Amino acid sequence: MLHRNLALHTDLYLPRWMYIYWKQGRHNERVVFDLYYRSNPFSGGYVVFAGLQNIVHYLENVSFTEEDIRYLKQQLDFEDEFADVLRNFKFTGSLYSVREGEVIFPNEQVVRIESTIFEAKLFQTALLNIANHESLIATKYARIRQAAPNETLLEGGARRAQGVDAAYYGTRAAYIAGFDVTSLVSAGRDFDVPTGGTMEHADIQFHDEELEAFRSFAEMYPDNTSLLIDTYDTLKSGLPNAITVAKELEAKGYRLKSVRLDSGDLAYLSKRARKALNAAGLDYVKIVVSGDLDEYVIQDLRMQGAEADTFLVGTRGITAYEQPALGMVYKLVAREGADGKLKPVIKVSSSKVKTTTPHKKELYRIIDNETGKFKGDYIALADEPVETYNEIDLIDVRDPAFRIKTRNFSVKRLLVPIFQDGERVYDLPNATDIRAYHHEQMNGLWEEYKRLRLPEVYSVTFSKPLWDLKLEMIRQTRIPK
Amino acid sequence: MLHRNLALHTDLYLPRWMYIYWKQGRHNERVVFDLYYRSNPFSGGYVVFAGLQNIVHYLENVSFTEEDIRYLKQQLDFEDEFADVLRNFKFTGSLYSVREGEVIFPNEQVVRIESTIFEAKLFQTALLNIANHESLIATKYARIRQAAPNETLLEGGARRAQGVDAAYYGTRAAYIAGFDVTSLVSAGRDFDVPTGGTMEHADIQFHDEELEAFRSFAEMYPDNTSLLIDTYDTLKSGLPNAITVAKELEAKGYRLKSVRLDSGDLAYLSKRARKALNAAGLDYVKIVVSGDLDEYVIQDLRMQGAEADTFLVGTRGITAYEQPALGMVYKLVAREGADGKLKPVIKVSSSKVKTTTPHKKELYRIIDNETGKFKGDYIALADEPVETYNEIDLIDVRDPAFRIKTRNFSVKRLLVPIFQDGERVYDLPNATDIRAYHHEQMNGLWEEYKRLRLPEVYSVTFSKPLWDLKLEMIRQTRIPK
Repeated sequence: MLHRNLALHTDLYLPRWMYIYWKQGRHNERVVFDLYYRSNPFSGGYVVFAGLQNIVHYLENVSFTEEDIRYLKQQLDFEDEFADVLRNFKFTGSLYSVREGEVIFPNEQVVRIESTIFEAKLFQTALLNIANHESLIATKYARIRQAAPNETLLEGGARRAQGVDAAYYGTRAAYIAGFDVTSLVSAGRDFDVPTGGTMEHADIQFHDEELEAFRSFAEMYPDNTSLLIDTYDTLKSGLPNAITVAKELEAKGYRLKSVRLDSGDLAYLSKRARKALNAAGLDYVKIVVSGDLDEYVIQDLRMQGAEADTFLVGTRGITAYEQPALGMVYKLVAREGADGKLKPVIKVSSSKVKTTTPHKKELYRIIDNETGKFKGDYIALADEPVETYNEIDLIDVRDPAFRIKTRNFSVKRLLVPIFQDGERVYDLPNATDIRAYHHEQMNGLWEEYKRLRLPEVYSVTFSKPLWDLKLEMIRQTRIPK
Repeated sequence: MLHRNLALHTDLYLPRWMYIYWKQGRHNERVVFDLYYRSNPFSGGYVVFAGLQNIVHYLENVSFTEEDIRYLKQQLDFEDEFADVLRNFKFTGSLYSVREGEVIFPNEQVVRIESTIFEAKLFQTALLNIANHESLIATKYARIRQAAPNETLLEGGARRAQGVDAAYYGTRAAYIAGFDVTSLVSAGRDFDVPTGGTMEHADIQFHDEELEAFRSFAEMYPDNTSLLIDTYDTLKSGLPNAITVAKELEAKGYRLKSVRLDSGDLAYLSKRARKALNAAGLDYVKIVVSGDLDEYVIQDLRMQGAEADTFLVGTRGITAYEQPALGMVYKLVAREGADGKLKPVIKVSSSKVKTTTPHKKELYRIIDNETGKFKGDYIALADEPVETYNEIDLIDVRDPAFRIKTRNFSVKRLLVPIFQDGERVYDLPNATDIRAYHHEQMNGLWEEYKRLRLPEVYSVTFSKPLWDLKLEMIRQTRIPK
């Protein structure tokens, strides 16, 4: 997807309203939109933000070709003068975002865009599409990483992903979230992820005998051989043949890398395989298991004493099988008033969680100076001097009656400037650096928030001025006459 | 994705074994691979095949760039002579496939590839990725179409899709499966799908009053205005304001197109809206409903007498929410023997369903001459003269003891030649033609197979020679010494 022009990757109503605002002479009015989600996927405790790289590429490349304009004109029936406006379209606004790999929580604005209404409208579909997808998949893989903190994790779901992008960027998300190896070559190359893999049943069938197939591999890659041992009979054929090949490799001064189990009862077979390998003096040969794995199956396998050094994750990782969509939304929170100043905007809903949080805001992480762990996040109006505070009154978003004071903390501003007035001011880190950053952030999070099921709810709090503003705006909202 | 070169969109073990076969001097041996799935998604009765267009583009464009070769050489440690082999790589084999939009069933080989092992290996990841994704999504939308046979169906899930491809090709799949309109402009343009949409809450908030926002839309698009009426209060504000605008439009000789409900109880609100609109003499104004719809919610809404003319489907369609992956597999079924002739290959598994069906085969649909409905599908060895038969003995794949004879039928060969010896011999139909073809096929299928829950199982049968071959090969399979 890198560097594709996605100007028309948008829902039709967005350019339609761009045109209406232009006709009304309002298209250059300034607005602030927030991007956020409302509840954690997988009944978990957090989301891992991903997709910023793609968002940056999108914004840097968005422009309307003549063909785009011709098609839009057909659909929207606009005059030629508007075609010129589209011809000159480029992003001239500012974008703030949390870093990729950041751990984020419900109702936190993780991307903030400040631009004309004209620009902000267009970006909605693409920004949500990218952030929803990549953050969802990164979160799923982070959960799998938690279930297997010490094992090697191999990503191999490309064939079951929802299209080519989903496989490619899903693999990047897996790596960011802590996976070690991918089988997908394109992603390995472009994101500098180590690649790996074994063989398939067809490779056994293409040889007259299993042992012959194993030897083919070992002969070519004596120091990097991984044998799939379940084609005929794991314990009676695959395993003894693998041991034979391992011994032949030893005789030549090499070591068999691993055997892979892809069917049958993985807990039972892995224990039998470990035993047989050890008995043959091959305790260094690793065991790779695969087959519809996710964080729950991995937990269960570990609980049952399965002997697995590497988990190969496919379908259930790459598609976030249990919950394949994240519900990030993109909401107007402020717009230019008649006086040229930004004024807050609210959408009140009978559903409390759908009521938006007005105005241009900052997002801070409160970090305990003693432990280095996160105490909670703090959302304040953009002009509050939070960084100079020694004490903060944290008002819980879910239950504002509940407030605590905190001291001896540091604050970290989570939204970093990515574009300012159309200029990129942020250097995109590579996937390896994002992975390291993500790892650090996970360490800042107490264990209770990372529990796979029924985690403790992380504290997201408002500043008093923000809380007062929101309350006042809810009170003032009347059905317009 | 069209015309991207996806040579490295492959799992690493595939080029690794291409290299091994080349070193063994076996890379030009002929093979047959079948692509099929094993059980219907969504507990449903069928799958709608999609993805052929992308597969064709993939095969026509696949080639290794110098950069691809450099990277692969690093990963696989091969000699320069092999780099030349990659440089000259192109698809020279044959591909047979069912048409896009075809209704297919478990264990039917819906794509058959005949080529060298060298070529067939490389294609696995991309072919499965494309066919799994697009067929899954088309199937989900076909189910939604069944739940709403007479309503207008609008696709609008791009922002929640698993990446840009998933949104784009998912929209195409929706259209093929019978959706009428899309909100995604790029897909509308490239696949010639009608586009549509309304507005969002931000458009109301960007105006001082709801009525003013409605008027903005109506003024610009007097013959194509659709108003979102739930921003403040659906019944007290949105609906009366929409009626005001409708009357204003009438005074100018126009008609308001529709109102849209996106929150609250859709059944209740739609009935109240219908009543109020009718009472105002606006019985022509359509009602659009949206909000996490899928085939089940639509069924329930209809059962509760909801007044909806159009359903806008998002998240749950574009991601196939309930079951976001289809398990198509790609299996070796025949390879060139020492005598240069194709010989069947089998993989026997303790899991009956994972045992492959050997040899090069054809897939036929048996169509009743009287009703025009499908009697079942028939898989035979490639050299059986099925088209000349007056009577067929159908051996049920799930229970071979169960056989029926059938007469007075026509047979339709479902696998059509797409490539022969590397040349494309098939003209790709456009999405509109595929949609019409799909619609016809759904009409050929008795209702009981289309039931959303607990459908009758469609009959997939084997020819006697194929059945005998499979049985004999299972018997002969011994664990290799």
